Amino acid sequence: MRFDVTILGSSSATPIFNRYPSAQLLNINERYFLIDCGEGTQLQLLRNGFKAQRIEHIFISHLHGDHYLGLVGLLSSMHLNGRKKPVFIYGPPELKEILEIQFKYSQTDIRYPIEYYFTNSDKPEVIFENQDIVVETIILEHRIPTTGFKFTQKRRLRKLMKEKVEEFGLPLPAIHLFKRGFDFTGMDGKVYHYQDFTTDADEPRAYAYCSDTICNWKYMDSIEGVNTLYHESTFMNDMLDRALETYHTTSLQAAEIAVKAKVGQLLLGHFSARYRELEPLLLEAQTLFPNSKLATEGTTFDL
Amino acid sequence: MRFDVTILGSSSATPIFNRYPSAQLLNINERYFLIDCGEGTQLQLLRNGFKAQRIEHIFISHLHGDHYLGLVGLLSSMHLNGRKKPVFIYGPPELKEILEIQFKYSQTDIRYPIEYYFTNSDKPEVIFENQDIVVETIILEHRIPTTGFKFTQKRRLRKLMKEKVEEFGLPLPAIHLFKRGFDFTGMDGKVYHYQDFTTDADEPRAYAYCSDTICNWKYMDSIEGVNTLYHESTFMNDMLDRALETYHTTSLQAAEIAVKAKVGQLLLGHFSARYRELEPLLLEAQTLFPNSKLATEGTTFDL
Repeated sequence: MRFDVTILGSSSATPIFNRYPSAQLLNINERYFLIDCGEGTQLQLLRNGFKAQRIEHIFISHLHGDHYLGLVGLLSSMHLNGRKKPVFIYGPPELKEILEIQFKYSQTDIRYPIEYYFTNSDKPEVIFENQDIVVETIILEHRIPTTGFKFTQKRRLRKLMKEKVEEFGLPLPAIHLFKRGFDFTGMDGKVYHYQDFTTDADEPRAYAYCSDTICNWKYMDSIEGVNTLYHESTFMNDMLDRALETYHTTSLQAAEIAVKAKVGQLLLGHFSARYRELEPLLLEAQTLFPNSKLATEGTTFDL
Repeated sequence: MRFDVTILGSSSATPIFNRYPSAQLLNINERYFLIDCGEGTQLQLLRNGFKAQRIEHIFISHLHGDHYLGLVGLLSSMHLNGRKKPVFIYGPPELKEILEIQFKYSQTDIRYPIEYYFTNSDKPEVIFENQDIVVETIILEHRIPTTGFKFTQKRRLRKLMKEKVEEFGLPLPAIHLFKRGFDFTGMDGKVYHYQDFTTDADEPRAYAYCSDTICNWKYMDSIEGVNTLYHESTFMNDMLDRALETYHTTSLQAAEIAVKAKVGQLLLGHFSARYRELEPLLLEAQTLFPNSKLATEGTTFDL
């Protein structure tokens, strides 16, 4: 099952050096999930060869412009390009008001349904679930209400060894049992053990998206043990005071979180406009957590 | 005196083929005037080497997203980059509400003054004036209230022939008189004619910006005789029905307007996403009005 993320924007606050504000496109089993939607996201989708119409679910972490200003443009373009199928939007309640006032004054009567799910920033909640994935909020601490999002794969059925089943000529119900970890007893009373006909399913994987937040340990439970953690890393650690003051995280702190939460890999993003070169932020994180990477525009990471 | 325009966006509705939504930067005597501000305008300013902080006046023609969605991002970046001097915004009254609700929910307390001047779409009005220029609205006809903008240079003083004045050793008051077209009579009663000491000032030039609109003759008075007319040209004439239905203009109609209004040059823009190549739109306009040009991203036109 595909489970990867493509970075569409890595910049904080103001876009610069060809870095765009926050946006990431998740491909989960060939379904598109957009996380945040900074100004220019629809252009970044085009540039990276993604069809915006394939996006079904949009998750907005908070209402700072660099995380949602591309949304009206994206939704309007979907409308102009003839979309009929719904879009599901997960974000703070005020987002609906912001979108609707703009549709009203532009007299845009969006022809497809927009379904809102309002996040709250008090406690983590499951906000979406399908056969492949569960999405939960992560409670972050920023200057305004902000949530991250955790995407956790569901445990899949055991993997069938097809040739083995064929060899014994077992019926369909046996397969259903084996895949779910049950043995099968034939008409003759012979017991077939599921371990002989299946191998373990892949371990479910998880991706946590944390932007923007001051470094704290309150959301540690939410991100513990995820395979991939995206964490904002607005500043280097010599700007720690500025990070604290603006409720942001340094690259060293992001690495510290990755270590404590025992994650598999760390993706760094949301870089301040003061850094033309990003290598120093990466090196700083790698001193504590070697499997750190720069989540820059156009890069796709297997999760 | 500098009087030129740089095109930052030439696309209609949805951005595509590396074309951006509407935005143009006027340089009038080294002061920056922004006309429309589609999504991505702040990035286009950066890319074309313009400092956003130098923009003083912003003119928004109407509240379709492709003409204003870049404004919150631009104003926020100005704020984050420490701007103190005011920004003057000219546009429909509802624009203020759209901006303020977004500043409210993002808890952005813009630290520089924003002064609004509300346009109305009933009759042309002078909305700005300084020593160099007068700006008037142009009443367009689109699906929602829309105005264009006409920038007309003020007539400057006559040009002094400095060496001539020095040759005769005339005093300062004589120069003031000559520049304004008056003769000077010396203490000895001798009359010095202004034509002998000055040449004619350059003819004031005018630029009219018309986007978006159905082709009609009601705004002909406003644009008559301008040196440069920017006119939307969303479709080619084989799409005339679609143009009428959506209140847009074809390139042939734009050329017809240029002919009737006796303008100097015609800039075509606001191209539909259906056209990958723009040459056919240009050729269509040039069949009627040879001095037509494509107003594409990054091009600067002397006005």
